[in-house]
Parts: sequence; structure tokens; C-alpha cells
Amino acid sequence: MKKVLIDCDPGIDDALALALAAGSPDLDVVGVTTVGGNVDLELTTANALALREFLDLGDVPVTPGSAGALLHRTVRAGHVHGATGLGDVVLPAPVRPLSDGHAVDFIMDALRAAPGEITLIAVGPLTNIALAVRREPRVVEWARELVIMGGSYTRGNHNPAAEFNMLADPEAAAIVFEAGWQVRQLGLDVTLSALVTTDVLDRMRPLGRLSELLVPAAQFYGVVTAEGGPAIHDACAVAYVLDPSLFTCVPAVVNVETMGTYTRGMTVTDFNLRGREANALVATSVDVKGFWDLVLGAYGRLGRRLG
Amino acid sequence: MKKVLIDCDPGIDDALALALAAGSPDLDVVGVTTVGGNVDLELTTANALALREFLDLGDVPVTPGSAGALLHRTVRAGHVHGATGLGDVVLPAPVRPLSDGHAVDFIMDALRAAPGEITLIAVGPLTNIALAVRREPRVVEWARELVIMGGSYTRGNHNPAAEFNMLADPEAAAIVFEAGWQVRQLGLDVTLSALVTTDVLDRMRPLGRLSELLVPAAQFYGVVTAEGGPAIHDACAVAYVLDPSLFTCVPAVVNVETMGTYTRGMTVTDFNLRGREANALVATSVDVKGFWDLVLGAYGRLGRRLG
Amino acid sequence: MKKVLIDCDPGIDDALALALAAGSPDLDVVGVTTVGGNVDLELTTANALALREFLDLGDVPVTPGSAGALLHRTVRAGHVHGATGLGDVVLPAPVRPLSDGHAVDFIMDALRAAPGEITLIAVGPLTNIALAVRREPRVVEWARELVIMGGSYTRGNHNPAAEFNMLADPEAAAIVFEAGWQVRQLGLDVTLSALVTTDVLDRMRPLGRLSELLVPAAQFYGVVTAEGGPAIHDACAVAYVLDPSLFTCVPAVVNVETMGTYTRGMTVTDFNLRGREANALVATSVDVKGFWDLVLGAYGRLGRRLG
Amino acid sequence: MKKVLIDCDPGIDDALALALAAGSPDLDVVGVTTVGGNVDLELTTANALALREFLDLGDVPVTPGSAGALLHRTVRAGHVHGATGLGDVVLPAPVRPLSDGHAVDFIMDALRAAPGEITLIAVGPLTNIALAVRREPRVVEWARELVIMGGSYTRGNHNPAAEFNMLADPEAAAIVFEAGWQVRQLGLDVTLSALVTTDVLDRMRPLGRLSELLVPAAQFYGVVTAEGGPAIHDACAVAYVLDPSLFTCVPAVVNVETMGTYTRGMTVTDFNLRGREANALVATSVDVKGFWDLVLGAYGRLGRRLG
Repeated sequence: MKKVLIDCDPGIDDALALALAAGSPDLDVVGVTTVGGNVDLELTTANALALREFLDLGDVPVTPGSAGALLHRTVRAGHVHGATGLGDVVLPAPVRPLSDGHAVDFIMDALRAAPGEITLIAVGPLTNIALAVRREPRVVEWARELVIMGGSYTRGNHNPAAEFNMLADPEAAAIVFEAGWQVRQLGLDVTLSALVTTDVLDRMRPLGRLSELLVPAAQFYGVVTAEGGPAIHDACAVAYVLDPSLFTCVPAVVNVETMGTYTRGMTVTDFNLRGREANALVATSVDVKGFWDLVLGAYGRLGRRLG
Repeated sequence: MKKVLIDCDPGIDDALALALAAGSPDLDVVGVTTVGGNVDLELTTANALALREFLDLGDVPVTPGSAGALLHRTVRAGHVHGATGLGDVVLPAPVRPLSDGHAVDFIMDALRAAPGEITLIAVGPLTNIALAVRREPRVVEWARELVIMGGSYTRGNHNPAAEFNMLADPEAAAIVFEAGWQVRQLGLDVTLSALVTTDVLDRMRPLGRLSELLVPAAQFYGVVTAEGGPAIHDACAVAYVLDPSLFTCVPAVVNVETMGTYTRGMTVTDFNLRGREANALVATSVDVKGFWDLVLGAYGRLGRRLG
Repeated sequence: MKKVLIDCDPGIDDALALALAAGSPDLDVVGVTTVGGNVDLELTTANALALREFLDLGDVPVTPGSAGALLHRTVRAGHVHGATGLGDVVLPAPVRPLSDGHAVDFIMDALRAAPGEITLIAVGPLTNIALAVRREPRVVEWARELVIMGGSYTRGNHNPAAEFNMLADPEAAAIVFEAGWQVRQLGLDVTLSALVTTDVLDRMRPLGRLSELLVPAAQFYGVVTAEGGPAIHDACAVAYVLDPSLFTCVPAVVNVETMGTYTRGMTVTDFNLRGREANALVATSVDVKGFWDLVLGAYGRLGRRLG
Repeated sequence: MKKVLIDCDPGIDDALALALAAGSPDLDVVGVTTVGGNVDLELTTANALALREFLDLGDVPVTPGSAGALLHRTVRAGHVHGATGLGDVVLPAPVRPLSDGHAVDFIMDALRAAPGEITLIAVGPLTNIALAVRREPRVVEWARELVIMGGSYTRGNHNPAAEFNMLADPEAAAIVFEAGWQVRQLGLDVTLSALVTTDVLDRMRPLGRLSELLVPAAQFYGVVTAEGGPAIHDACAVAYVLDPSLFTCVPAVVNVETMGTYTRGMTVTDFNLRGREANALVATSVDVKGFWDLVLGAYGRLGRRLG
């Protein structure tokens, strides 16, 4: 069992990533923390709470974190994820409450209590992780690994240079990449390879109640055709933890641009190390069939459990 | 009695500011927190511990905080404050320990416990304050006031554009100035007016054991003549809390430059509000005689107490 | 006789600077070139043409130059100089035409033809000078001296950090300061010391036709009182050429900020050379009485000539 | 016959581009201008002079231009092009001289004399073109078209973000892209598709004296294998003028980053116009076979002529 702590901003693809975790018996989710990102913190937190019960995540604590970016006003992606952050899916109201406390403290305390055991999975803006690193630099040693969804070594999605999670808090991303660990980075270069096609969607349909989340969420996220469709970016980070061999990864020096006029939030990725230590292990390709087999296998297990 | 929490990086002028607080019966120092700044965090913390006992600050907790700047590598001023941070003054080794915990938590908890009562005095880089603001935005409401030593509306000291405390963590300073409170700013424009002259130094000499700190510290800090000498910047922030009427203050919009090639850390100060709300109350002049009467009066009281 | 070439953007204070040159028998004005600045190039050029005849500058060629800044959209100061650039003064329509050609070529050709003889006086944005330097780097050797009105080593005027001429083309200013000569810089620090007071204005009144330009122009430019009034910035540059001893000047390394969010166009001035070669000789004070005696003496001579 | 004016910095691929022009009877080369780039201006100019004679370009004037970048110190690529700029090729010393004058003037004058007729081909840093645009904005209307080799909409070559020509003068590139024309941009995205393979090299061998330039130049430029080898970037710009149908081109808004820490010189390319006018027509793919047929056909013609 791999212990994971998931920092997220649900968000459609966050929901699909949490579903992947929920359907994976090899993962022990020790906590879910939230951050403002795709939509405001109030919504990402409400969605995380609702998803905990809908996905039968048990008594995993859900702890709210940072509302906005470290330094400047941030961006939102409500046009992508819908006003509530989950497209037009309406989940049952959750009955169990939020945890007391703050995501930054939860992250510090959880890692301190089990050094070397917990993998941090961060699939939203990196504000909470950056604050934890600055508040307690030893989280870098205590974490077994940091796996993120974010960035790109070619082009962005929110604008030509920057991917959304990085653009939403470039300074936090810079702090995280410079913190001393080797970030496992699942960026657009791979996430845009693993698309929800008609075939994938068809395999999501017969999953009972779970389908009522998966199918409309995916369809809200993008037009599904036989050849392509939306990417479920955040699920790639969870898939990486479950089976790193699905991804080709290359060591690189990644610098996050914080100053440019047109390039703030860009992850400038140098694969030519020239003797420098790599601060990132960057995914450059994905076994698409293997990825969907893993994901849909987990969804199937979870679907059967949820009925 | 005014409750104050002093975030500092001793540092010679920090020491003289703590001495002013220690000699002021109107102040109730509820805590001292430390930050890396003039010298490294280990030294600023060791100095704060030693000063607590030397200055007879009682059981005020001393809590260590951030070692470095929020975003990038920072600057140090060991050439100004000496290798240990206190010039060539050697204080007796302290016997009582540091508090457990971290400055950021201490600040949050102290302010939460007494909303509206505690004045934050920050005389080092603003890293701890910025982290507290981002970790718990309500500290802005809970603080009675934030008084800082830092910045300038004309020229810098560490370079032509930037004052040292701001340059040491420009992003933290930007966060603090944009946080929603009206920062009381004592910058170089006033601190460089209140200099330790021969006359001032002569009044520091007959203060017993306290003189053994004050006199060599001031002399290490700069050449003292009849007309001028070093400024004891940080003491201005404490003096402002004790008697704001010593300072002329003007509301302004202060933006901290984080992007320039030559101007990082500059506090760009616009006194022309044009309808905008002032985020700072900027000291523009000081009653020099009144300042020294206040400071030397407190030093006298403390000197008598210390013997 | 000192040969001068005046690059300007009239502009009220440009007009008063040209009047100073016209009334100074020691100056031989070999050309006037224009640049977009206070107002658009069409207006600065039309004003220069009209001023040539009104001020009896003879057959000095007037050659138009750059309309806008080198790199980005520029700023204008029509609110300061009035819609036409000369406040509400209306000069007689000129009868003689513009020169063919372009200011950049005129500057190159004039300097090439008389190396070491001509002092360049630039009192607008430095676009033309920068283009000449980049088109023909030897203008730096050929110029006897470059004297500019622009910048500040403390605060700006168009915004808290930048003086108008520098802000109007920061990249051009950076090119000019880095070109290899020692720029004679008359900035706000001195120009704001030499103000048109009631007394000065009274001495401008009895100058016949010339008064019809000087008095309303000065009054449009600012409120005149016994203690203060508007500065006639550009005239300081001409005064410096006529009598450098009126100004205290200090060697400095001046870097023009081109990147900051709040500080673009700031002339970051380091008087601490630390072994570097000074690229500027920066005026730090002015003999105000001597300045006005020089200026009003010239205006008197010119007033008598114009009738 | 298409009239072209070629601004270049030979440079190996510049040499191969000039050879393509020389072997294309449909092109009338009205001038060659030089700029500092791959190597210093003295060398790029000497190489252009030697190439004019070696390639039998007739009496085409060769006019030297800008030595360095507009604003800051520039970069060089001597490690790529060899110390002389032509690898280890040594051409016969030319007998005919440089033209008098400067590239910027030559460009302005040539375009003014034949408005709408001349296509500008710029395959080095854009310093000369930017200076011409700023000195005489009408060159934008007078040029039939501007075709450049430079930039990328994915990754750079000199660093992860920037292509060499753009990085060598980002401000010039920004001026050129913002000047009002629709730049035809052949960037790395296509040039890196048309590689010198073993097969291509074999077709360059039997071309007599011309082979003595082509073959060692190509081999110096990169390792040639059956599958890949060096790109001859600049030749793509000439090929585009000869046959635009070889390239798929997409309208875009291109902004050149001038401010970033890691991204200066990056051409940030937005294909999503959202109602904005495209300032560039960006090549996104090339018919590789067609390209080499065109290039090798021209080389064959030229080889036969040169003997």
C-alpha cells in the first residue's frame, strides 16, 4: 500500500483523479487538501467533501488550504470546469464535515509523522505545497516523493506559454521546483496524449452510479470523438504513482518563469543538464493503452463497490 | 500598556530597538520572533535569546522563524552588523531555551488569541509576516497595527533603489503591503534623520552594564561625529509605537517592485492617491530631539534597572 | 562660440530653453531636431518651426525625427503642456519650411562633419539619439559632449519612480547611457530647484514681444508664487552648456530600468563607483541665483533684439 | 523574377541560403546586407563578400550593418559555425570591395525606390530591420513582404525557450513583429524538419566547386546520418519565397518576450486570434521532399555554372 496525500482543486479532472485513487486498493489516501484553483476555494473544498462521500473514500480527512496565489491575483478556469467546478454534475450533499485546521499544517504534520512514507500528489496550483516548504523546509526530506500535474515543456494551455496550474501561482511553482527534491512532473506533453475517446467513454458508461459522475463530467470537459476528446490531466499524476512504468520520464532542470510579460508561469525545461543536478523528472510520453487499462480497471472496481 | 510582538533579525539596530522596548514600561512585549536577515537565522535567534536575558525582558517567548526569503536567494548584511550580528559585542550566554514552535504559528496564535490588541512590529525582512498572512489571512484583521522598519520613498541603502529589509525579501514585502491593512512604514527617509551623534553617544555612556552593549554597538555601526553618525533604524519603529506624534506620516500607495533589473525591493511610493485607498502611512519626518529624549529616557530607565 | 545641436520636443520648457539659446551669443545653434514627446511629433515639429522664426534663430535647420518610442507605446504629457504643446500661446505661423531628411541622419552628418566640435543637447525622449548611436556608433566619439535633461536620482515626476523624458523611451535612454560617453545629466533633482517665482516672472514681463511667449507659457506650466512655481527643466541643459560652474556635478553609474512593473524608465543612480567607470556626470545642485541671472540676462538680450 | 534583399549573418546556413538564391533564376537579388549574429559583423561581412564572388552573385551590393543588438549585449554562435563563421571552409579572398554606406540606409533606399516590389529576407538577428523600421516607418508599406528565419512556437535551440536569431536581439524582434506587417516566419518548427541526411549529402557531392562549400559546411554543422542531420535553417526562408506552397502556414499573434528571466527572445505564438489581427504567418509544416528537390535543383544549376 502506498500512502498518498492529495492536494487538489476539484475541478473535473481532479474528481476523475480522486475516483482513480478511490478505485485503487494499492493506495492509502491519508488526506485530501484543497486549494483555490480551477474555481474558488469554497467550491473546491465543497466538491472535495462531496466527492469523499460519493467516491466512498471513507474517513480520509479533507482539509481546506489557500484561497489564492502566493503573490498576485490569480486566474480561474470556471469556463472549463463549470460554475461549480464539476461541470453540470450535482453530487449528493455530504453529511460529514471538514476537518479543522489548515492544509499547510495538515501536510506538515502528516509528513512529519511518517517520514519517507507519504507521496504528495499535487494536482492544483502549488500554493499549499510552497507554503508548507517555506514554513517547514524538512517536508522536502519527509516526503517520499512529490508528483505533480502541471506545466509543459512545449506549449501551455491557458495561454501559449503556460499551463493553468503553473500560471495560477508561478511563485509557488518556482518555490516548489527549487526546494531540493526531484519533482515528478506530469505535464501537458503527456496528459494531452491520453484523451477520453468514444471508446473510453463507452467503457465508462456501464459503471452504475459512478457513471453518473464520470460520463457527464468528461463530456462537459470536451467534445468526445473516436479520435480524441478531453484529457483528464490530474488522473495522470495518480496513475504515475500507481505505475510509473506507464510513463517515459527524463531528468531535467525546470525553471518557472515568474517575470515575463507573456511567459509568466511557463515551466522552462532544459533536458541538457550540463552537469547540473536535475530538479525534475519530466514525463515525456505515456503508454496510452496501459494508462486507460489502469484507469478503467480502477473505475470498474469502484463502480462495482458503489453499485 | 500596549501589547507588541516584535519580529526581528538582530542585528545591531534590532538590539537597540529591543533595548528601547525593554526600557519602556508602556509596552508589554508578548513575544519576540526571529527571521534570517542581517545575518543567518541561527545567529539572529541566538542574539535574540541572549538579548532577552541581557535586557531583562523576562519570560517573553523567543520563537525562531524563516531562514530565507520566500522566493529567491536572499542578501545578508554581515559587513554592516559584524560576523555575529552584534558587531564586536559579546553577550553572556543565555541560560533559558528557545520556545518550541515556529514564528509563523506564534504570530497567528498570538493575534488570534487577542484580536485587536497586539501591535506587530517588524524590523527585519517580512518573510514571517507574509507567511502568516498567506497561511491565515485574518491576521490582518486581528493585528491592532503593523509597524515596520523598511523601505524608502527616495533612495535605498543596500543599493541605489532598495532598502535592505525590503531587498532581502521583495515578494514578502509585496504580500505584506497588499494584504489589506495600512502599514505604518518607518523608512530610511526618517531613520537617516535620527543619527547617533557624539552628544547622543555621550548620553549612552553612563548607563552601567547597558552601556557595554549600546556604545560599542553604535560605534561598530558607523563613525560617530558631532554632526552625524549611524542611524538606529529599527528603534524608530518601536519609537513610533510609543509616541506616533514624533513622526509626520502621510498616506500613500506603496508598491514593492519585484521585477526590475536594478530596482527589485524598491518601495515605490505614490503620495498622489487619485482616489485609491492608501495601503501605507509613510513617515516623512521625525522630531529628532523628541526621538532621542524618548529613546535615551528608556535607555536610562533600563540602565538603572540592569545596574 | 560653442556649437550646439538641440534635440527637443517643444513643449513649454523646450521653448524656454530655445529662447535661452537664442539669447546667448556664445552659442552657435547648428541645428534643431525634433522628437515625439511632450506632444506628438507633428506638434513638436510645428512648434520648433514656429519658434525658429519667433525667436529669430536665423537659418538654423529644423529636422523632424522619431514619432514614437523605440520599443513600446510611449506616454505623452499634453495635460502639462496643453493640446498644442505650448500652453495657450499661439505663435505666428512660420513661413520657412522644414528641412528635408530625418533627425537621425542630421545628427550623424553634423557630428561627422565636425568631430569634437558639437555639443548635443537632448531635452526630450532620447529616441533620436539612441537611433543615431546604433546606426553610427562613432557619434559617441564625434560629439563634444552630450547634455541631457532627464531622470532623477531620487523620485520621478510622471510617476513616483520615473521622470517623463526617460519614461517616454526607457530603452532609448538605456542605449544612450550605455553608449560609452559620460552623459551630462540635468535631472529633476536640480531642475526642481530653479523655479519660476513671482520675482522671476516679474523680470520676464518687461521684455516686449518675447514676454508674450515667456509669461503665459510659464503661467500655464504651473502656479507662480513668491516661494515657488514651475521648473523650466530643459533650460537647465542649455544653462549647463553656457556655464557648467552653476551646477555641482558628481560622477555616477546610471542604469536605466527597462524591466520593472513600477519602475520602468527610472534612472538608477549609483554614486558609489566601486572601481567602475562613471557613465554619467550627474548634477546634484544648482546656484539658483546664478542660473536666473544667466537665463534672464539672455532673455533680456533676446527681448531687446525681438523688440 | 522576384526581387529580394537578403539581410544575413553568414554563418553556415546563411551561406547555403545564399547558394540557393544564387542558383534560382527566378530571384533577382538586389542587395545583401550584413549584421552581427552567428559571428561578429567583421566576419559576417567578410563572408558575405567572399560568398558573392564564390557563388557568382554578380554585382549585387554587399553593405555592412549593425554590429550588435539594439539594447543589450548579444550572444554569438561561434561554437556552431566555427571561428570564421563558415566552419572549416576557406573561400578564395574576394577582389571586389564592400559598398559604401550602411545596411539600414541601403534597406530604406532600396525599398523606397521600388515600393511593393522587393521582398525582404532576414535570416539573422533583426537589428538592421528594426532600425530601418524605426528610422523610416514606411519601409513596412514599401516592402512586398518580410520573410524571416527565426523563432519557434514550441522550444528554442540556443536555450529551451529561444531560437538564436531572436535571442540575439529580442528588442529588435519585438519591434519587427509589432511594426504592422504580417511577418512570414520560418521557425525551428519547420527548419528542424528539413534535415541534411546522407541521401541529401550524396546529392550535394557531385556539384564540382560548389560541393567544396556545401559538403564540408553541412558536415561541420552537424552529424549526418541516414535518418537525420543538421538543419539548414536559413535556406527555408529563401525556399519560402521561391515556393510558398511547400509550407503550411497559419496566421498567429506572435509576441516576442523581452522581459523574462528564462524566456527572453522567445516568440510566444498564439494561434487563437480571438478577433485580433494576425501579425505573423507562421510556417507549421514543410513538404520535405519538395524542399530538397527545390534546393538541390538550384544547387545543381549553380554547380554547373560554377564548374
